[in-house]
Amino acid sequence: MQAEIITIGDEILIGQIVDSNSSFIGRKLGEIGIDVAQITSISDQREHILTAMSAAAARVDVVLITGGLGPTKDDVTKATLCEFFQDSLQENEEVLAHIEMLFTTYLKKPTSELNRLQAMVPSQAIVLKNEYGTAPGMWMEKDGTVFIAMPGVPFEMENIMLSGVLPRLQTKFERPFILHTTIQTYGIGESDLAMQLEDWEDNLPPFIKLAYLPQLGRVRLRLSARGTDQKRIEEAVAKEIASLQKLIGTSIVSIGEDPIEKRIGALLKEKGYTLAAAESCTGGKVAHTISAVEGASAYFVGGIVSYATRSKTEVLGVEASLIERYSVTSIEVAERMALKAKEKFGSDYAIATTGNAGPDKGDGDVEVGTIFLAVATPDGVSSKEVRFGKNRAQNVARAVNKSLEMVFNLLK
Amino acid sequence: MQAEIITIGDEILIGQIVDSNSSFIGRKLGEIGIDVAQITSISDQREHILTAMSAAAARVDVVLITGGLGPTKDDVTKATLCEFFQDSLQENEEVLAHIEMLFTTYLKKPTSELNRLQAMVPSQAIVLKNEYGTAPGMWMEKDGTVFIAMPGVPFEMENIMLSGVLPRLQTKFERPFILHTTIQTYGIGESDLAMQLEDWEDNLPPFIKLAYLPQLGRVRLRLSARGTDQKRIEEAVAKEIASLQKLIGTSIVSIGEDPIEKRIGALLKEKGYTLAAAESCTGGKVAHTISAVEGASAYFVGGIVSYATRSKTEVLGVEASLIERYSVTSIEVAERMALKAKEKFGSDYAIATTGNAGPDKGDGDVEVGTIFLAVATPDGVSSKEVRFGKNRAQNVARAVNKSLEMVFNLLK
Repeated sequence: MQAEIITIGDEILIGQIVDSNSSFIGRKLGEIGIDVAQITSISDQREHILTAMSAAAARVDVVLITGGLGPTKDDVTKATLCEFFQDSLQENEEVLAHIEMLFTTYLKKPTSELNRLQAMVPSQAIVLKNEYGTAPGMWMEKDGTVFIAMPGVPFEMENIMLSGVLPRLQTKFERPFILHTTIQTYGIGESDLAMQLEDWEDNLPPFIKLAYLPQLGRVRLRLSARGTDQKRIEEAVAKEIASLQKLIGTSIVSIGEDPIEKRIGALLKEKGYTLAAAESCTGGKVAHTISAVEGASAYFVGGIVSYATRSKTEVLGVEASLIERYSVTSIEVAERMALKAKEKFGSDYAIATTGNAGPDKGDGDVEVGTIFLAVATPDGVSSKEVRFGKNRAQNVARAVNKSLEMVFNLLK
Repeated sequence: MQAEIITIGDEILIGQIVDSNSSFIGRKLGEIGIDVAQITSISDQREHILTAMSAAAARVDVVLITGGLGPTKDDVTKATLCEFFQDSLQENEEVLAHIEMLFTTYLKKPTSELNRLQAMVPSQAIVLKNEYGTAPGMWMEKDGTVFIAMPGVPFEMENIMLSGVLPRLQTKFERPFILHTTIQTYGIGESDLAMQLEDWEDNLPPFIKLAYLPQLGRVRLRLSARGTDQKRIEEAVAKEIASLQKLIGTSIVSIGEDPIEKRIGALLKEKGYTLAAAESCTGGKVAHTISAVEGASAYFVGGIVSYATRSKTEVLGVEASLIERYSVTSIEVAERMALKAKEKFGSDYAIATTGNAGPDKGDGDVEVGTIFLAVATPDGVSSKEVRFGKNRAQNVARAVNKSLEMVFNLLK
């Protein structure tokens, strides 16, 4: 069975925000065996909303709508829903009580007139509670199609999806079994990987589909299998993954959605090791990436962002003479930074980065995109020079990726 | 005039990646006065692509397509374009030469068979050079509608948009003048802001539209104006912004897209001050956010991520007795961290964060979501306790936002 997502709001069309809501909804629907056939982003305009709703209803069983439910004048979704369902708004007591509770408890003030209007919902709608906000989710049906409207604020929508939408969809619809499996690889480009996997790919059973997802120097593979026999599908996918392990096992970071920083965390915990960081050009992103993993405090001790050269000597303790001799952006300084971070934090491993992320050469000694990475280990220090492009954010992201791959390789 | 965007690839529908390409395309088209009427994300399937292309062509003048141009078997866009345009593929010499150059120069190996296929393009297509990859952009026309196909890899697509697509669109079409202006605010919730602005909003001229964009405790306002008389529009928008400044000036971070970290950077540079950071629960994200701004090395000296308690004493130099007395997550320790960072890095200002980002209480002394923020200044130290929810990533992001708002307030 299939669903479509309609996101309402000019901010997506004019590129002011990225539509992360659809991504969340697609993932969650996939987990319960509902396919998203299309995502349509449209403006806050009555006619456009009505057209998109009718078109989607002609194609699928479930239409999920986000956005346009705020209390302000630019939000027209609720009035348009009434028009589509030939319904009218009426005040919902439960929603009003919830809004008043939110105001009393968190905002410590009386409910504003504008927010009281949030309790007005189409009379046919089943209300889906919005734990974290004033705009409730709404479930409505017309000619066999379910329409679900949710606010566009991501964490409010997510909570309504998990607590209201998914359980209701699971009860209402019979669904096929769908299994998406991601295999995260590194170190091989997309076309080399495709050539190495050509025979294997040609021999995949017809109910398993393969996709290549390249991103910032890494390729994720996705196997999507579907059918009615869950056991048969799971076994077939497990068999294909075992074949993949034989073919490209050394280039696999993880099977599933675990990012490399989570795998690094698991390896560090398993071996009882700790990790620190000394960052220049990555400016704290290595530390942030590692510490974003839940439970990172078990192995991540800390880091120094030695952005200014003076902080490399005075805070991190790299010798000024070394910097003078080799330049602040050099393999020697990267190695020394890693060793000093290991020493300062008393850790077993330490990552270091220094280089020019761009976009200008500035007063640096190396070209934009040239970055030096080092990892201190219990046995010594490894290092690497990498060359990327001219985009600052991308250079930082790629340097973080590469440095994590170095630690991962050393820990494996 | 209007355009539509079609993104092709199951990875968006199943929520494996977020569609940031459409956001970029929408922004860039808006800048040259082309409106995006709809964004449609569909699967890698021939029929679905054909249907979406026909539907879009019936509505708008320009259809931009991304994705499905890779060398692997799951990519079917090029074959489908041939079907739509009743065309066939032929080898393009320039594209082939570019692919061979990429292989020789960067990959230092001969062009693979699979990548030679990337030089095959529909015979009617005008090729738009892909500086950074093997899949060229393609410009084709049918019955007065322009179709542009680009690879889905963001930085490849972005380069093709800037160097090939936008200049061609500007030459081919007459366009109205569109002016989008963002006003970034902080410290007032969406509905309070809407009430404060009600009279002003009611009196906006009909060609100026207002939208509220709330995100992580902040609200961005967007004014969208359009017409043929550029001067009249610019003056009208400037007048409305001047009124806004009078109404909510103290809550405005910036007019335009500059994020608060860029405004902080500008204020620091203007006053000749420097900034450092000492982070616990934010794990490096404060430092990363500040250093992500181009030219941050002029005022950002560095930071210490004192994640483990031991690193707060041994690396940052906070007194163990203070931590023991008040707890590692306390306003007193946050203040001390800020002062120690200022001292260590010899900076004028320093931000500090400590608290429990969650999702579990762990062995901490405070509830999940309780975070202490401090800013050391040339005159002393300010601090604040904030309480957020249970989501780790969101708590970190909100704490970073709040800490930046504190510095901004102190610098203004």
